[in-house]
Amino acid sequence: MALVVQKYGGTSVGTIEKIQNVARRVARTYDAGNDMVVVVSAMAGETNRLVALSEEICEFPSEREYDVLVAAGEQVSISLLSMALQSMGYKAKSYLGWQIPLYTDDAFSKARINEIEDANIRKDLDNGIIVIVAGFQGLDRDNNITTFGRGGSDTSAVAVAAALKADVCEILTDVDGVYTTDPRVVPEASKIDKISYDEMLEMASLGSKVLQIRSVEFAKKYGVVVHVRSSLNDNPGTLVMKEDADMETVLVSGVAYNKDEAKISVMRVPDQPGIAAQLFTPLSMANITVDMIIQNISQEGFTDMTFTVPRSDFKKALKIVEETAVKVGAAGVQCNESIAKVSIVGVGMRSHSGIASKMFETLSTEGVNIQMISTSEIKVSCVIDDKYTELAVRVLHEAFGLDNGQVVQE
Amino acid sequence: MALVVQKYGGTSVGTIEKIQNVARRVARTYDAGNDMVVVVSAMAGETNRLVALSEEICEFPSEREYDVLVAAGEQVSISLLSMALQSMGYKAKSYLGWQIPLYTDDAFSKARINEIEDANIRKDLDNGIIVIVAGFQGLDRDNNITTFGRGGSDTSAVAVAAALKADVCEILTDVDGVYTTDPRVVPEASKIDKISYDEMLEMASLGSKVLQIRSVEFAKKYGVVVHVRSSLNDNPGTLVMKEDADMETVLVSGVAYNKDEAKISVMRVPDQPGIAAQLFTPLSMANITVDMIIQNISQEGFTDMTFTVPRSDFKKALKIVEETAVKVGAAGVQCNESIAKVSIVGVGMRSHSGIASKMFETLSTEGVNIQMISTSEIKVSCVIDDKYTELAVRVLHEAFGLDNGQVVQE
Repeated sequence: MALVVQKYGGTSVGTIEKIQNVARRVARTYDAGNDMVVVVSAMAGETNRLVALSEEICEFPSEREYDVLVAAGEQVSISLLSMALQSMGYKAKSYLGWQIPLYTDDAFSKARINEIEDANIRKDLDNGIIVIVAGFQGLDRDNNITTFGRGGSDTSAVAVAAALKADVCEILTDVDGVYTTDPRVVPEASKIDKISYDEMLEMASLGSKVLQIRSVEFAKKYGVVVHVRSSLNDNPGTLVMKEDADMETVLVSGVAYNKDEAKISVMRVPDQPGIAAQLFTPLSMANITVDMIIQNISQEGFTDMTFTVPRSDFKKALKIVEETAVKVGAAGVQCNESIAKVSIVGVGMRSHSGIASKMFETLSTEGVNIQMISTSEIKVSCVIDDKYTELAVRVLHEAFGLDNGQVVQE
Repeated sequence: MALVVQKYGGTSVGTIEKIQNVARRVARTYDAGNDMVVVVSAMAGETNRLVALSEEICEFPSEREYDVLVAAGEQVSISLLSMALQSMGYKAKSYLGWQIPLYTDDAFSKARINEIEDANIRKDLDNGIIVIVAGFQGLDRDNNITTFGRGGSDTSAVAVAAALKADVCEILTDVDGVYTTDPRVVPEASKIDKISYDEMLEMASLGSKVLQIRSVEFAKKYGVVVHVRSSLNDNPGTLVMKEDADMETVLVSGVAYNKDEAKISVMRVPDQPGIAAQLFTPLSMANITVDMIIQNISQEGFTDMTFTVPRSDFKKALKIVEETAVKVGAAGVQCNESIAKVSIVGVGMRSHSGIASKMFETLSTEGVNIQMISTSEIKVSCVIDDKYTELAVRVLHEAFGLDNGQVVQE
């Protein structure tokens, strides 16, 4: 007998009929002899409806009250799913974050999980009860409701699986798993059977929206095997797990892209110690995350600094940077919102050279100019003009042999 | 400086604009130098929407999960009202039942309040914070959400007022106060300035829907002065309070009616000790509340028993009674769903005779036949054919001088 944690997103519980479908699927896994914990999101559209209500009242609501508001969505879906299971003759019981309790820090709307008490849930499981957990929410040490941001139910599921030492954490979604790239861009994209935590982290942070990035960090930290699969069929999906020997034989596992950044350049900055801190401290004070940073070679005691920020923070960032530029005596500020980041990811590239240059060559052959480059052990990212995004993704996917699952091996 | 508890019902917080109106009214009372606790219901229509979702899943949902579901409505309204106050520059903080905590027994959907911890709220009030409390909900000793039934926010407000020893508990509603009778039936009905707890209990239980009956019991028990008034103007409403000398000079304070009952008669029951218990125990086992009971004079060792039950329980009750009637050897069962109960209420009638006979005379003059009579110290109720309800209410209201506030005094 195994302990299975399943997570269903808002689309999977978007209507009463869909909730009943979920109940049937949960019952099937339970009937197969498993203990079951089911984590659910709010019904599709519900969180947006609640956010819209708050926006009618004020632009920047108190974060505490915002979390109270949006957490109500999961309260509805967990009770309905419990009722659906009960009406089929199963024992089921819902848990809100504070009832578990699932403790977090007090960073409203982006809280991090500190600790999960497992005693209550475990007792129910021992009594054959199917436990339904509200995703996306927890409780801080002052008894306030906290939430985890969009996609937070993934993190709830992985955290609960870790706390209960579940055998597997299934993330049921509307796609068949993690793909080598976005199938809307490259129809030849294929499902990846297994992917390492580090690769998944790169894929997630680079724009693949299958899993919330924090859930992957959590899974890696606690060694939770995450199975991303479709809620509409029984096909095996993608296992996100510890790196194994097979994975290393694949040079590039996937191609990711991201159109959510913008580029800012500060021209002719005096090349002195401390200048970077002067530029970036005000941005971090304003809670703006800087992604790629490039500093050109110094010429005549001056240098150019270029970096990217989330497009949603672009205007705020530009204003701050323009003020700082004046203070440090820079010649001026240039910016570009029409950029995209295209990346190749794979643990195999750690032990192989030539992957980056093959990427540059491939892009250049198609006439795509590279504006910035950033690399890690297992990924290479290039910033390009965003109108070339789809072209770049397609040619890279083909060049690294990902079309139709023909991956390049050593 | 006083401590004011205000309660706003679902209609008063039914839209964002109305929530902002409530915020302005709360702010006005706060600015006048009062500490403020505001209890709110779910936005109008929200509870019905949630109930409809559960009904799509099953007819008789688990009561625990039903309470989890419907309690989500208040979670939305308290956070929105807090945001509205904050956007106007006030400090505000929302409390769900479990955050207070407001402890109840475990009777889901009709829980009774056991205890309210006041320390957290008191600390916030001391810091100048306007406290917003979710009505209708509490927490049992096993950490489950419980709710209080329709109108339960009134009870929340009175209970919170009692726990905090508030100076007044204002129930803001869409009428100007408690009326001598339903103004839709008698346009001449007038607002009552003050009414005793006992009278209000009779009025509430007899069908006047201004206050949940349990809230009046609570107010009486703890001596909370309840001010029922309009949320749309600043007119004084009705004070529900301890009986005083003024009140006793009024013979009849109000005329109430109730069309929610049905009548069942068991014919020719053997007139033996224990027969009433045999008839009514199965009904109470089925959680059916029997209201009026009449037993005729015994003739030849047999008697007829007639009683009323809530119309919503009528079919269930009839089935049970028919089974019992066979067991006890009764001649048969008759029933009537087309009845109404019309009542006059007033503490003054305690010390005056002739009130009941004046009521019977008034009804008889209009040709209204009385089917059953029930009396208490401060009320007389008659069951009549329901087609005469409005007529009976009108003539009684006039006969006891309630038209246009001309009450009959001794």
